[in-house]
Amino acid sequence: RRQGLPEVVYGPGKTAEQIAAVVTALLTHNTGPVLATRVAPDVAEAVLGRVQDGRYAPEARLLLWRPARLRDFDVAVVAAGTSDRPVAVEAAAVAEAVGLGVTTVHDVGVAGLDRILQIRPLLERQDAVIVVAGMEGALASVVGGLVRCPVIAVPTSTGYGAALEGVTALLAMLTSCAAGITVVNIDSGFGAAMAAHRLAHVSEAHR
Amino acid sequence: RRQGLPEVVYGPGKTAEQIAAVVTALLTHNTGPVLATRVAPDVAEAVLGRVQDGRYAPEARLLLWRPARLRDFDVAVVAAGTSDRPVAVEAAAVAEAVGLGVTTVHDVGVAGLDRILQIRPLLERQDAVIVVAGMEGALASVVGGLVRCPVIAVPTSTGYGAALEGVTALLAMLTSCAAGITVVNIDSGFGAAMAAHRLAHVSEAHR
Amino acid sequence: RRQGLPEVVYGPGKTAEQIAAVVTALLTHNTGPVLATRVAPDVAEAVLGRVQDGRYAPEARLLLWRPARLRDFDVAVVAAGTSDRPVAVEAAAVAEAVGLGVTTVHDVGVAGLDRILQIRPLLERQDAVIVVAGMEGALASVVGGLVRCPVIAVPTSTGYGAALEGVTALLAMLTSCAAGITVVNIDSGFGAAMAAHRLAHVSEAHR
Amino acid sequence: RRQGLPEVVYGPGKTAEQIAAVVTALLTHNTGPVLATRVAPDVAEAVLGRVQDGRYAPEARLLLWRPARLRDFDVAVVAAGTSDRPVAVEAAAVAEAVGLGVTTVHDVGVAGLDRILQIRPLLERQDAVIVVAGMEGALASVVGGLVRCPVIAVPTSTGYGAALEGVTALLAMLTSCAAGITVVNIDSGFGAAMAAHRLAHVSEAHR
Amino acid sequence: RRQGLPEVVYGPGKTAEQIAAVVTALLTHNTGPVLATRVAPDVAEAVLGRVQDGRYAPEARLLLWRPARLRDFDVAVVAAGTSDRPVAVEAAAVAEAVGLGVTTVHDVGVAGLDRILQIRPLLERQDAVIVVAGMEGALASVVGGLVRCPVIAVPTSTGYGAALEGVTALLAMLTSCAAGITVVNIDSGFGAAMAAHRLAHVSEAHR
Amino acid sequence: RRQGLPEVVYGPGKTAEQIAAVVTALLTHNTGPVLATRVAPDVAEAVLGRVQDGRYAPEARLLLWRPARLRDFDVAVVAAGTSDRPVAVEAAAVAEAVGLGVTTVHDVGVAGLDRILQIRPLLERQDAVIVVAGMEGALASVVGGLVRCPVIAVPTSTGYGAALEGVTALLAMLTSCAAGITVVNIDSGFGAAMAAHRLAHVSEAHR
Amino acid sequence: RRQGLPEVVYGPGKTAEQIAAVVTALLTHNTGPVLATRVAPDVAEAVLGRVQDGRYAPEARLLLWRPARLRDFDVAVVAAGTSDRPVAVEAAAVAEAVGLGVTTVHDVGVAGLDRILQIRPLLERQDAVIVVAGMEGALASVVGGLVRCPVIAVPTSTGYGAALEGVTALLAMLTSCAAGITVVNIDSGFGAAMAAHRLAHVSEAHR
Amino acid sequence: RRQGLPEVVYGPGKTAEQIAAVVTALLTHNTGPVLATRVAPDVAEAVLGRVQDGRYAPEARLLLWRPARLRDFDVAVVAAGTSDRPVAVEAAAVAEAVGLGVTTVHDVGVAGLDRILQIRPLLERQDAVIVVAGMEGALASVVGGLVRCPVIAVPTSTGYGAALEGVTALLAMLTSCAAGITVVNIDSGFGAAMAAHRLAHVSEAHR
Ligand SMILES: Nc1ncnc2c1ncn2[C@@H]1O[C@H](COP(=O)(O)O)[C@@H](O)[C@H]1O
Ligand SMILES: Nc1ncnc2c1ncn2[C@@H]1O[C@H](COP(=O)(O)O)[C@@H](O)[C@H]1O
Ligand SMILES: Nc1ncnc2c1ncn2[C@@H]1O[C@H](COP(=O)(O)O)[C@@H](O)[C@H]1O
Ligand SMILES: Nc1ncnc2c1ncn2[C@@H]1O[C@H](COP(=O)(O)O)[C@@H](O)[C@H]1O
Ligand SMILES: [Mg+2]
Ligand SMILES: [Mg+2]
Ligand SMILES: [Mg+2]
Ligand SMILES: [Mg+2]
Ligand SMILES: [Mg+2]
Ligand SMILES: [Mg+2]
Ligand SMILES: [Mg+2]
Ligand SMILES: [Mg+2]
Repeated sequence: RRQGLPEVVYGPGKTAEQIAAVVTALLTHNTGPVLATRVAPDVAEAVLGRVQDGRYAPEARLLLWRPARLRDFDVAVVAAGTSDRPVAVEAAAVAEAVGLGVTTVHDVGVAGLDRILQIRPLLERQDAVIVVAGMEGALASVVGGLVRCPVIAVPTSTGYGAALEGVTALLAMLTSCAAGITVVNIDSGFGAAMAAHRLAHVSEAHR
Repeated sequence: RRQGLPEVVYGPGKTAEQIAAVVTALLTHNTGPVLATRVAPDVAEAVLGRVQDGRYAPEARLLLWRPARLRDFDVAVVAAGTSDRPVAVEAAAVAEAVGLGVTTVHDVGVAGLDRILQIRPLLERQDAVIVVAGMEGALASVVGGLVRCPVIAVPTSTGYGAALEGVTALLAMLTSCAAGITVVNIDSGFGAAMAAHRLAHVSEAHR
Repeated sequence: RRQGLPEVVYGPGKTAEQIAAVVTALLTHNTGPVLATRVAPDVAEAVLGRVQDGRYAPEARLLLWRPARLRDFDVAVVAAGTSDRPVAVEAAAVAEAVGLGVTTVHDVGVAGLDRILQIRPLLERQDAVIVVAGMEGALASVVGGLVRCPVIAVPTSTGYGAALEGVTALLAMLTSCAAGITVVNIDSGFGAAMAAHRLAHVSEAHR
Repeated sequence: RRQGLPEVVYGPGKTAEQIAAVVTALLTHNTGPVLATRVAPDVAEAVLGRVQDGRYAPEARLLLWRPARLRDFDVAVVAAGTSDRPVAVEAAAVAEAVGLGVTTVHDVGVAGLDRILQIRPLLERQDAVIVVAGMEGALASVVGGLVRCPVIAVPTSTGYGAALEGVTALLAMLTSCAAGITVVNIDSGFGAAMAAHRLAHVSEAHR
Repeated sequence: RRQGLPEVVYGPGKTAEQIAAVVTALLTHNTGPVLATRVAPDVAEAVLGRVQDGRYAPEARLLLWRPARLRDFDVAVVAAGTSDRPVAVEAAAVAEAVGLGVTTVHDVGVAGLDRILQIRPLLERQDAVIVVAGMEGALASVVGGLVRCPVIAVPTSTGYGAALEGVTALLAMLTSCAAGITVVNIDSGFGAAMAAHRLAHVSEAHR
Repeated sequence: RRQGLPEVVYGPGKTAEQIAAVVTALLTHNTGPVLATRVAPDVAEAVLGRVQDGRYAPEARLLLWRPARLRDFDVAVVAAGTSDRPVAVEAAAVAEAVGLGVTTVHDVGVAGLDRILQIRPLLERQDAVIVVAGMEGALASVVGGLVRCPVIAVPTSTGYGAALEGVTALLAMLTSCAAGITVVNIDSGFGAAMAAHRLAHVSEAHR
Repeated sequence: RRQGLPEVVYGPGKTAEQIAAVVTALLTHNTGPVLATRVAPDVAEAVLGRVQDGRYAPEARLLLWRPARLRDFDVAVVAAGTSDRPVAVEAAAVAEAVGLGVTTVHDVGVAGLDRILQIRPLLERQDAVIVVAGMEGALASVVGGLVRCPVIAVPTSTGYGAALEGVTALLAMLTSCAAGITVVNIDSGFGAAMAAHRLAHVSEAHR
Repeated sequence: RRQGLPEVVYGPGKTAEQIAAVVTALLTHNTGPVLATRVAPDVAEAVLGRVQDGRYAPEARLLLWRPARLRDFDVAVVAAGTSDRPVAVEAAAVAEAVGLGVTTVHDVGVAGLDRILQIRPLLERQDAVIVVAGMEGALASVVGGLVRCPVIAVPTSTGYGAALEGVTALLAMLTSCAAGITVVNIDSGFGAAMAAHRLAHVSEAHR
């Protein structure tokens, strides 16, 4: 595997046959988890019919072989709105596939501070927090102010008009007044999970 | 006066002579407050030498004649960072000039929720809140979730890089998850104060 | 309810079952109006089959339970062109649902001043005016010059080419030469109605 | 001369010597007006010292030799705000230089309809109207609705924040609801005058 | 009719019933041409079944009642590529409907100067030229350099990638090095024809 | 201190007196490092004259009091070009101030792979790598492919034209084909160092 | 043929009949290759049924008559990811059609330097290299640093979010730190092949 | 030298001492030309005082040591307007420094086709043409249609308003209807010359 990262196939634009072929090759020549992201249910079924021992997480649209064992690294995935759910679910599923301990909390908008304050103890227990938010993306700033650990912000393309398909949330997270927040691409639950995986690696290397 | 709004001269690009001439005419042909915004100190001094009974608020860069009497309408101006100060001060000075009761609170970033929660009672007492914030502009969403009254958000051009000279804060405020927030132009403390003035008018009309 | 705002479910991306479940919970645990916006007719019908006592406004695509009683706060919704109609209708329906007195006027383009001057008396009677316009959004400036009350401008995504799906109208409204106009997100009839609701609240609080 | 247009030197970035040399050549090899635009006062003086019989219009920053005789084609230049003045003055000076009959009206904002209605008879007498406006550029739409003749809209870079240095006015004018309006580049008083000159040509050709 | 312009219904988003109703009203209360633009063939057929004496130009997608008599004003519509054809055809059809003498020339790209030089005599006979071009829009500059008469440039949304759906052609035409060119909205064959109509009006007024 | 982050004063727009006052307060009421970023040399000197025991790093433009003891967490700061140097130096100085072990490598462009391959062993020894690059920002992708540890990418505003003052590098880093890279704001050496500090914290917490 | 370039019909928006008619005319009046690009399989079949002796390359979506004989000019088409494949295949097919010697290498991402270093000898043998890459487009910089020959970079619209449909790759390639790289339009495999054809021409002319 | 390209120091942001040090090192460890671009006259003088045998081309702002011998590869640099001159001069000076045979033609705007047609024979004799143009950049399309050889287009940041500091010319050149044109960064005369150098290399390699 390249640099300890899992092997991941990007599903869109590929047929079941193509995905199955790549996955089979990866399972043969590599060790560790093999994933295929953004796979539609019907394609997933066809792939699973060709490559044994896989599992499909339909909400995350993730295909998975040889998941990693659970590691001692805990990540919370916190999502702002209902529409951010698919991205949060992808982040959580990929993070679990590579062995991270994942807790997901949905529907934590900044317009209701009570909800955020309520999960504060949970957030403070984490090794990293992935914040998933569209529209104005303000949740990343609020969470960044509450925790000491790394915060990985994922802007989503939810919202309309001035939300500019995620660009507004992206820009807002990059200019967050909470210092030390980092950002990944719009809708990239996958990217956030990979970033958390890199964190887990360095933390393990130090023990 | 046009529609009950005060007469306001926009200072940039005008000489002291030009400002003095317009102000003199307005004082003669209208009643009520006359203002000149964004006036540099040396220009202000020269104008005051030509038009009597004026006052200059240097931090707000505002020249003012015939301020309105204090009305029963209370506005808080809440600013996120130190760099948002000039815009907040302009908003406050213009609002006071037209007779609103103004309380200004600086340095209320969303990365420190304690500060916001601390001023919550103050916010809940207001008839309107003007939120002044640059960078990711998240303060507007948080305040919008705390109060029932109108919230007027002013994005500022503070910050660098992805802040895009205020465009990021502007877009973020427009897509705020706190319902019913309204937005004015970047750095327009003046516009926010005028919006509050319109609010005060309708509130008075109903008594 | 959060800060006196009605509870509102955002319809897009949710099944009838999901909407029904959330609405049922809100009706049980809160008082006051419950709304679901941007709901397609077939979904609406399915929701109404599951949650009693609701009503559907098809043109506004709004589902509504427990509408508020009529309050003493009058709002005109003024729309520029035929294509702005859906956004104007949403604004009006939501405003009515929360108890505002609503008058809607369609087809008031600025290229025909006669029409605007004709409704001037009507505009001057309002407590607030919601201006709905796409393309160049100039109606907001003209209305802002005619009335003293708060003006809430809603840019719409109508038009083509340089209209940039509402961005042009949005920018134009933000830089309006009529002082004190405020702006909400593109196509957000809902946001404008919520802003009017906040105005009504402060006006009532003062009586 | 190329296609009957006057010869025009673009001043910025050129020394007085360079301008003088080009102008001298043009006066020798062509007939008709020769202009140099956007020339600073000190440069203008130096050029006039080298090339005889020229005239400098300081507010328009225009240098001019051999102005055309007055033709039977009347153009109004209508400007929205004080800051649009330099662009309007350039348009008027160039139009006069090529022989058009020019009337300039400043300070016609759309937030005050009285002013526009007052100049309506003047506008209706014109062969063409040049509308100069920054910020939201709404004046073009209003004028376009009042007259039957060609309307040439010039967006200006006045305003701040969401005015985006003239881009907002440009986009707004292009999407005007007044049919048949045409637009030239931001701040291009010169371009508008040239467009009017082309109009005059076709009108004369038809007599 | 507003200012001598024909009455025009914008088709998209309207049912045949709605178009028929508006057209019937316009035919009753106004004189002169009545048009409906961007009407799909099936809708057009249904409208014609309800409103007598109309005609449908399928390639232009234009419905037309009471076309104007031919006037003494000649316009060439010159289009750069095959894909610009629909916009050119709309411009030509609307121009004819209001009585202009129209010649259309397709497929005149600037990468083949021979073709342009070949139609030069034709261009020089016109009272105005409408240039329709997408991609880099360079045809407007070349034509603007060849003729003395007004040039109305219509950027189109043809092309891909950096063509940015017509924005590139729009910007290029606005910054054309050929002085006095004017520009209308992307894909607005209609707008260009209306601009030509305004030109014809002033030219006729002068006779 | 908020969440274990050091206290940091943002220098631009503040006088020496203002910086000195804030720093003094922070030194009194908090423990741990106190920093002031982006401070010009003359301002720095004046501040140091008012607040004892500080140090100024001129190339990083950083003022520093009470630096942290060296921790067991090693970070490489890798910069692409000479012009990226100031941002890299800020990142390194801040990281050192909070106790990280920092190695800085300048001038590692991707157009010369030899240089990158040469520092590969050094990179593989790190706990995190901060990549500083402007223009096309490709260095982040290459480094991300070479190491397993967290990669924090800092786009810089170097370059001209299509570099769009750092926006191109920012977008490129966000869409990097190397999975799990995270990004901070343009020119934010400070933000990258803070992100590394968060990483160090979680790594320490796990021992 | 225009300037030695092959005749090429742009398929999108044309019927099989239209393509067949143009191709037939070109085959009759010109010599050399005739191509039609971006043609769907069913359209292609219908065209081949009408115009003899053609060939269809389905993956490249290219129709081809009278391909050129093989010339002594070797081009490598190097593509970064699986999703860039269609653009790379179009470039290769068009280049072959005009007689260039083409080698295509897929799946050469910069996150895995081994793969690039492995094909280095192949790259060094070429007369020109076409680099096809989406997302951050970094492959162009790396290849540009490895070879002396001309590098033609083709940004692709693959990727999501901050990839901005190819604009990010386009900007990144234009600001590449590898000197002397040139760029064509997003997804324009055709344009890159034409650029290579121009190179081959000059190289042949010199022998 | 990297891949046969000359060694080039980018001047901006470097002191004379820094430039002199780098240049001295390059002269010692490499063979072939050494250049420093965008060097101001006073800095250039100071560098020449420290490093022997150099030459300064003031209009091109280029410092040069060990220019290459004249090679058999002819390039024309064609510039559209007077303001494009500095970029054209840089392209020409760098191209000469690396041994290309350079002819420069200024002031070839597309609004005057006569001038272009006049230099057509000169263009047809070249091995490559560098087209330098700002504003709408149409010259690249016209030249691309006239010659068979490679065309390297350099957009410049001249013009104002909708020229968007070169972005309009850049986009226009990328979407040129003349097939096979390639583009370099805005204002990058240097980049165009380097691209021509790569062309010369492949042409020489083939003899
Ligand atoms: N959802 C995703 N978002 C972004 N990148 C992905 C995603 N899934 C897989 N990838 C990356 O895509 C590459 C594989 O692409 P492909 O060869 O097209 O399957 C790998 O480098 C993955 O890291
Ligand atoms: N700071 C400001 N921001 C925006 N508009 C302003 C400001 N100050 C004054 N104005 C408006 O500018 C107009 C006066 O402009 P002028 O005629 O140039 O003085 C009035 O309509 C004011 O409402
Ligand atoms: N194709 C078109 N492009 C732009 N505006 C149009 C078009 N067709 C009609 N219009 C304008 O649309 C308005 C009528 O819109 P509506 O009331 O929606 O039918 C009139 O002002 C027309 O001038
Ligand atoms: N895939 C393509 N991308 C860009 N331009 C193309 C493509 N295919 C053909 N062309 C150009 O399109 C023009 C022909 O367009 P058309 O007349 O619409 O067939 C010619 O100038 C070709 O060089
Ligand atoms: Mg743990
Ligand atoms: Mg009160
Ligand atoms: Mg009332
Ligand atoms: Mg007359
Ligand atoms: Mg005639
Ligand atoms: Mg270590
Ligand atoms: Mg060979
Ligand atoms: Mg030769």
